[in-house]
Amino acid sequence: MKSNITQTRLGILGGGQLGRMLIQEAINFNLSISILDPDANAPCKNICDYFEVGSISDYETVYNFGKNLDLLTIEIEKVNIEALEDLEKEGVTVFPQPRIIRLIQDKGLQKQFFKENDIPTSEFQLIANKEQLLTDKIPFPYIQKLRKDGYDGKGVVKIVDESDLNKAFEQASIVEKWIDFEKEIAVIIARNENGQTKTFPLVEMDFNKEANLVEFLISPSTYNFEIQQKADKIARDIADCLNIVGLLAVEMFVTKNGEILVNELAPRPHNSGHHTIEGNVTSQFQQHLRAILNLPLGSTASIANAVMINLLGEAGYEGPAEYEGLKEVLQKEGVYVHLYGKVFTKPFRKMGHVTIVDQDRNAAIEKAQFVKEKLKVKS
Amino acid sequence: MKSNITQTRLGILGGGQLGRMLIQEAINFNLSISILDPDANAPCKNICDYFEVGSISDYETVYNFGKNLDLLTIEIEKVNIEALEDLEKEGVTVFPQPRIIRLIQDKGLQKQFFKENDIPTSEFQLIANKEQLLTDKIPFPYIQKLRKDGYDGKGVVKIVDESDLNKAFEQASIVEKWIDFEKEIAVIIARNENGQTKTFPLVEMDFNKEANLVEFLISPSTYNFEIQQKADKIARDIADCLNIVGLLAVEMFVTKNGEILVNELAPRPHNSGHHTIEGNVTSQFQQHLRAILNLPLGSTASIANAVMINLLGEAGYEGPAEYEGLKEVLQKEGVYVHLYGKVFTKPFRKMGHVTIVDQDRNAAIEKAQFVKEKLKVKS
Repeated sequence: MKSNITQTRLGILGGGQLGRMLIQEAINFNLSISILDPDANAPCKNICDYFEVGSISDYETVYNFGKNLDLLTIEIEKVNIEALEDLEKEGVTVFPQPRIIRLIQDKGLQKQFFKENDIPTSEFQLIANKEQLLTDKIPFPYIQKLRKDGYDGKGVVKIVDESDLNKAFEQASIVEKWIDFEKEIAVIIARNENGQTKTFPLVEMDFNKEANLVEFLISPSTYNFEIQQKADKIARDIADCLNIVGLLAVEMFVTKNGEILVNELAPRPHNSGHHTIEGNVTSQFQQHLRAILNLPLGSTASIANAVMINLLGEAGYEGPAEYEGLKEVLQKEGVYVHLYGKVFTKPFRKMGHVTIVDQDRNAAIEKAQFVKEKLKVKS
Repeated sequence: MKSNITQTRLGILGGGQLGRMLIQEAINFNLSISILDPDANAPCKNICDYFEVGSISDYETVYNFGKNLDLLTIEIEKVNIEALEDLEKEGVTVFPQPRIIRLIQDKGLQKQFFKENDIPTSEFQLIANKEQLLTDKIPFPYIQKLRKDGYDGKGVVKIVDESDLNKAFEQASIVEKWIDFEKEIAVIIARNENGQTKTFPLVEMDFNKEANLVEFLISPSTYNFEIQQKADKIARDIADCLNIVGLLAVEMFVTKNGEILVNELAPRPHNSGHHTIEGNVTSQFQQHLRAILNLPLGSTASIANAVMINLLGEAGYEGPAEYEGLKEVLQKEGVYVHLYGKVFTKPFRKMGHVTIVDQDRNAAIEKAQFVKEKLKVKS
């Protein structure tokens, strides 16, 4: 990589909202940004130095995209690993490391990694295909997850009893014991090449069950010190085992008896860190850049209580997006609207997010409820 | 203008650092941005939807650039007013209003406006040319300022005695009584089309005398309540007189006997408001967008003490820019580096700025001094 980091030619595989927010930060470091995305109208399209329409899972496309760049990173895991490995051999820096993306791409390998490294996680079983699922007679209820390509709640199905088996996936998958958890929590950790690590304060989440997407995130969590320490330690243990360079989001469950189980990992900026743009001294996007450029990591301290809401396409509307209630929500102090530049809305599509910052936690939650009621994406 | 603000096609005359930071904010509102700038390598070049190389002071170029847009704004005053007036007649919204840009472009008209509206300002005299300067025998010392096209300290000369007269400008200018001021202060005010106004807290500045540029800005000012109120009222009076839509930066002097005199105006985001990105609830860039889109204005409350330093090209270096000391300054908590994407440095060129945020004012100032010593733009 260039010794003068401001001359770094950075490539990002994927040009969605995560890439978009990464660019908003990268502008401050003068980085030259190239984006590869299959969608000609991807959110990053008009705000980067070079935009290429192409498949991020195709060897040739990724290889040719990366070969003249200094540094490659990702905003989604579903990328061609072989191309990244070959680029690495030829001197292009790739962070997170391809071996880590390969591990995390496959929920089966991820689970085995947890098991081998004593990372607490729910019981699981690898399943080759639907036939095995039927013959193994796994006790109900359970969750079946595709080993590969699940995303934003897709590729996950809950099997409560025999009558649900028609919904089961055919492909290679994992079956996890159904966890009756109290809450989902997350810790984002960053690690740079020098080995410096920093964790963001623990956050807790509420889900929209219908969409199976995070809808309401609160930072920092009010869980007791013991839970916070335990979750922080798990994130550090995983980052150490992996020797990752970049951000790692660690999603976890807190069970009803106070146990913490790791759900899954994302080696990149993550939905559970969007609130850090306004809520923390350093945002997750700046932290990811600092980590992959081997700069000193920034302070992750909370500035205030922050609540983040995903702005999802309203059910029943499909077409060019319109935003209802924008003026109303912008009247409230400390409400930060981030739209992702997607032209078309469809039900539950992530069209943006809103972060609400307030010194008072309850005031922040109340404002978030107001925003949730008022701000709608329709067509 | 479109009722759906997120479909607004916004044009900005000028594609420098102010446009760049405006775009970083505009991304959050999905605005489609077109930029007109004479420099093919302007800082906004690669981060907008449409970039046109052309003169912002040429009628045809500005008219053709603007005619298919919904809303036009500026990041520099030196633009073709006639084109903006014609575009306005044809239904393009132009904020700030062309008549205000015309007034502010000419320091002579600006001074007359202050006088006619009882806005306190230093004594002055309009001068047609150098000959008049010599025959009028104005008492020394005084400041001569070009009526038009002065920028970043250019177009200003101090005439201490007869021996300085060889430095005097030939062109139409104003001559101001030399003010032995204590400090320069500034208030930024925003006004939207509905007439809602909000002022940012008062800031105070230190100058680099060699470069004649603001080098060190502290927010909020620790001047007493009376001075703060007076300065705030002056900004409100000016915005009301002008009926401006958009941001207005009001630069003022505090004299040694506590009088406030308005120095000059800028009808756009301004160097004295860069700290608001991290130091205030709403940044000046978001506030300008809210004002020109007729959205509710955001809270201008300070989050913490903030010190802003302009990062100027080091004297003695000219060529491709390199940034020395970046790692050292990023080690400190609350240090935000903003580079402007300019490829070439030259002495005193504005290459970026750094904002230092700290709950403790003295700690912020100390860190700013550290940043000033460590971070250098060389070649």
